[in-house]
Amino acid sequence: MILDKINSPKDVKKLGKKEKIILAQEIREKILEVVSKNGGHLASNLGVVELTIALHSVFNMPEDKIVWDVGHQTYAHKLLTGRRKKFHTLRQKNGIAGFPKCSESKYDSFDTGHSSTSISVALGMARARDILKKENKVIAVIGDGALTGGMAMEALNDAGSSKSDLIVILNDNEMSIGKNEGGIARLLTKLRTRKLYEKSNSVVKTILRKIPFVGERIIDFVIKIKRSIKQIVFPNMYFENIGFRYLGPVDGHNIENLENILEASKNLKGPILIHVITKKGKGYSIAEENPNKYHSISPFNIDTGEKIGKSKKDYSKVMGEKLVKLAKKNKKIVAVTAAMEDGTGLNNFAEEFPDRFFNVEIAEQHALAMVSGMAKEGLKPVIPIYSSFLQRGYDQVIHDICIQNLPVVICVDRAGIVGNDGETHQGMLDLSFLNNIPNLNIAAPKDFEELENMLEFAVNLKEPIAIRYPRGGETKEGLFENHEKIKLGKAEIIQKGENITVIAIGKMVSYAKLAIDKLEIEGIELINARFLKPIDKKTILNSVSKTKKVITIEDGTLKGGLASTVLDLIKDLDEKIQIKTLGYPDKFIKHGLPSEIEEIYHMDVNSIKEEIESMMEIKNEN
Amino acid sequence: MILDKINSPKDVKKLGKKEKIILAQEIREKILEVVSKNGGHLASNLGVVELTIALHSVFNMPEDKIVWDVGHQTYAHKLLTGRRKKFHTLRQKNGIAGFPKCSESKYDSFDTGHSSTSISVALGMARARDILKKENKVIAVIGDGALTGGMAMEALNDAGSSKSDLIVILNDNEMSIGKNEGGIARLLTKLRTRKLYEKSNSVVKTILRKIPFVGERIIDFVIKIKRSIKQIVFPNMYFENIGFRYLGPVDGHNIENLENILEASKNLKGPILIHVITKKGKGYSIAEENPNKYHSISPFNIDTGEKIGKSKKDYSKVMGEKLVKLAKKNKKIVAVTAAMEDGTGLNNFAEEFPDRFFNVEIAEQHALAMVSGMAKEGLKPVIPIYSSFLQRGYDQVIHDICIQNLPVVICVDRAGIVGNDGETHQGMLDLSFLNNIPNLNIAAPKDFEELENMLEFAVNLKEPIAIRYPRGGETKEGLFENHEKIKLGKAEIIQKGENITVIAIGKMVSYAKLAIDKLEIEGIELINARFLKPIDKKTILNSVSKTKKVITIEDGTLKGGLASTVLDLIKDLDEKIQIKTLGYPDKFIKHGLPSEIEEIYHMDVNSIKEEIESMMEIKNEN
Repeated sequence: MILDKINSPKDVKKLGKKEKIILAQEIREKILEVVSKNGGHLASNLGVVELTIALHSVFNMPEDKIVWDVGHQTYAHKLLTGRRKKFHTLRQKNGIAGFPKCSESKYDSFDTGHSSTSISVALGMARARDILKKENKVIAVIGDGALTGGMAMEALNDAGSSKSDLIVILNDNEMSIGKNEGGIARLLTKLRTRKLYEKSNSVVKTILRKIPFVGERIIDFVIKIKRSIKQIVFPNMYFENIGFRYLGPVDGHNIENLENILEASKNLKGPILIHVITKKGKGYSIAEENPNKYHSISPFNIDTGEKIGKSKKDYSKVMGEKLVKLAKKNKKIVAVTAAMEDGTGLNNFAEEFPDRFFNVEIAEQHALAMVSGMAKEGLKPVIPIYSSFLQRGYDQVIHDICIQNLPVVICVDRAGIVGNDGETHQGMLDLSFLNNIPNLNIAAPKDFEELENMLEFAVNLKEPIAIRYPRGGETKEGLFENHEKIKLGKAEIIQKGENITVIAIGKMVSYAKLAIDKLEIEGIELINARFLKPIDKKTILNSVSKTKKVITIEDGTLKGGLASTVLDLIKDLDEKIQIKTLGYPDKFIKHGLPSEIEEIYHMDVNSIKEEIESMMEIKNEN
Repeated sequence: MILDKINSPKDVKKLGKKEKIILAQEIREKILEVVSKNGGHLASNLGVVELTIALHSVFNMPEDKIVWDVGHQTYAHKLLTGRRKKFHTLRQKNGIAGFPKCSESKYDSFDTGHSSTSISVALGMARARDILKKENKVIAVIGDGALTGGMAMEALNDAGSSKSDLIVILNDNEMSIGKNEGGIARLLTKLRTRKLYEKSNSVVKTILRKIPFVGERIIDFVIKIKRSIKQIVFPNMYFENIGFRYLGPVDGHNIENLENILEASKNLKGPILIHVITKKGKGYSIAEENPNKYHSISPFNIDTGEKIGKSKKDYSKVMGEKLVKLAKKNKKIVAVTAAMEDGTGLNNFAEEFPDRFFNVEIAEQHALAMVSGMAKEGLKPVIPIYSSFLQRGYDQVIHDICIQNLPVVICVDRAGIVGNDGETHQGMLDLSFLNNIPNLNIAAPKDFEELENMLEFAVNLKEPIAIRYPRGGETKEGLFENHEKIKLGKAEIIQKGENITVIAIGKMVSYAKLAIDKLEIEGIELINARFLKPIDKKTILNSVSKTKKVITIEDGTLKGGLASTVLDLIKDLDEKIQIKTLGYPDKFIKHGLPSEIEEIYHMDVNSIKEEIESMMEIKNEN
């Protein structure tokens, strides 16, 4: 194995052409082996194996910096930078992360996880280098999908007008190489990588100087061939117009060509864009054929590509199916997603109602403002979005949706602990950052059935509402027999008691119920808050005034969510109330299984049971 | 006066060409008269007078919808839509707002205030119209400045690939008309508005079909004339490539031409972009010459253009001047702004350190991610940003700055009540939405000198920190004699007392001090929190344990800021603590003078005095 001898990028540089091709194959096998066991991002990682080898062959990490956009495509990079022995621990607790982490390796230049940040970050690094008079290269690697995100466009504009030396690698995996065989684009590549590029600029300038008046005939011609030109030179024209030098496109699976173009870029000044064509899932035909399915995947059988273990129903799916039912009755319901059709469970909706389904690609800001326009004009938009990505559209929730009190339903998916994706993907903050927005109603269901009921309630509400629910499935099927009708701002008393009040929200209601069931003692009043806003002041104060003891439980930060809201409610009571607030501390939470993380932060059923016990001062002997 | 007879857009339609020209002049005079008295946005409003007249001549409001991007250019629109008699109350308490408000008029289609939202919203409205089978037109009016915002680009991409009928008016006020006299761009306009446009598409297609192989010579030619083509057809090429039909450019001060092009657009299908060239400040030469200065302005003398009343020192200026001093000593300090060089007080910095100053235009997301790259590589970036615009970069503060604990200094300007700009510009939420972000330190100064000290402290801190301060100046010069050294997480006891604890943050410390000074009684302990995070647990608990009574005061929402933090701190004390939390309720707050708003919400010095009195149960007789 060649891979076994690669302990750092220096070892990559020593390899010959043929060895690198073998190395690529070995890396693919390694990635397949581990991802099929641990789950993770597959298609994107298989797509950039050669690009990663070429980058480490040409540039010198860690002095040179690579910023990987989104960061889910760094498995090959990790294998080549001293982490191959740990690679089997990928995404596991205390194992290596699925995303770049500076804390993990000096070869990781910047932590990423969300889309479209790399050009901004790389430009900042390039400017820092210039001011500090260093000499290193800075490279951003960004996919064509991430390029649709607005902040990437903002960064391109700024970078283009700057004079900083910066290399942006556009990892274009939409366009298949086949189509370009012998085509114009490839010709342009040849022309440019042969250093003709530098000269052609001055040639053009000379020619232009000789044309004092660009006459009508030329314009006429220009108009006529405009469309054809667009097909030919649009990408570079666009990038060059905003100040980039465009190199490419180049076959992203040909290491030699990649190295040539990267070498060429080293000698050019200013912002450069290298257009690299790759294939998602490359080398694993099952993933090549269905790259979306194999983008992020749970453990699977390598031979068949089939998932190991049957797929369980999850909250996203429950939401999606219920939404289809509701949309059949209510023609005003539309669904909008920012490139997460599958993940948010909207596939069926998209199929059933193609005219009422809108995938705006990676553009959370636009998505949230767009639905405000829809709602304003009488539609009932439902927009499922992951909790951590909702952060991207925070201003739009405030400025476009809530100031005008528009009836948008935001389904906050992947809320709370999400697990293996780590810090950047945990949905810890939404209860808090939504709670301070005036006019916004906030709800969270205890189980699938309550999600269905809340969704039905929400599409009939004439105000904005966020419904937050976790990644994955119900805690325990059939745990709750009763499902009271949803009323705005009304909590549900799950069980009555006189000695202690337990107020939980969302999935934590089920944890609380399980903890209480284990305790087998009387006197515990369990309240399912249902709404964080409006909070059910009456029910909560009635209970707490009676018990004088309260525990709040939420699947998120303790700062600004349920705990803060209950503290505010009880502050005006005359008597001292004993209160314990359970939730996550003011920390970023690393990757691991949700169950493992819950144990670490004492948010598992047993820990909750102990908290109740200790507050009731009736410790069991066991 | 023609304007006196305009009670609705119908009256505009009745006017002849010459009358409309006179009307434009009258509108300009009215705007100048009122803005010179009340303050407000001037240059942008003077720039769109003819465009507004043309829009109301051609389209039928309120059935047709206009979404005004940013919304600060709607004065002429307000004058033509039944609000001319109230126009003198512009931006005043209970008067008409400086931005579109649906609650104010049925002719306002959507509330705006922040930049770059209009295309998203308009697209949502267009899609709603299609689904609901209505026939109205939807128009977004967006400036070239706002077009740099990422979400506008996201929206253009989505709109371009949609088939919805949508008219985007690009109000281009950068490019002066002079330059285009007789130019190519104008020629294209002629060609297109004469309905040649529809045909040319098919002509192009026919021609292209006849070229089975686009040979090398053409490519060669293409490369050679590429740069020249870009100058000629880039704007339309760009827009057409992403799916828009491009009309223009057209002189934005020629009502007849504008009406022609708008009429033409009505008959076209799909997304249309009309490129309108306007001049900021048009018709008021003083503003034409210096449009930035007259963008948003306080009351001024019309004849001289000079401000009435001398300009007082404000927090932004204090920050800017101190930063220059610090930057002279520390070469790693850089300053970044998203198009707010003047507003945030960075002018001097920009002049003194042009190589260390970066204006990235309207691109808050990019700005915040870019500084994270700078900080990662060893610079000390300081990024002043208005509180309500920081919402736009919320994810970047979390994902790019704080997860990696990078030493960025965010100066949160215009925090708390800002006054006349109303709901969209109030900085009510930052203490709350920043408080839940792990690793972020949050501070707020009580006066200018403390801001200077905090800034000096911040540029030496190796962690991220936000310093928030209000719009305008100190509450009272020389109010505080002492300025203890800033220490991370350390509060300042302003005065000792045994009976009640008053904890305030930022400008509210000065209000509390004034209230206490008025009371002239002993026993009040006043704590300047200084840091919301890390909160000074020890100082606060020591005080509260002693007094058993506490009042918190903050210039922001009560949800999730200082009040929540103190409630959390005192929850574990054995005794019942009496607590009152002063701040703003969970509502969007309308425009008015800050002093007027403070009275309404009982946040003025007198109200605070009364709250302290009532809690001390020693009501004075007066």
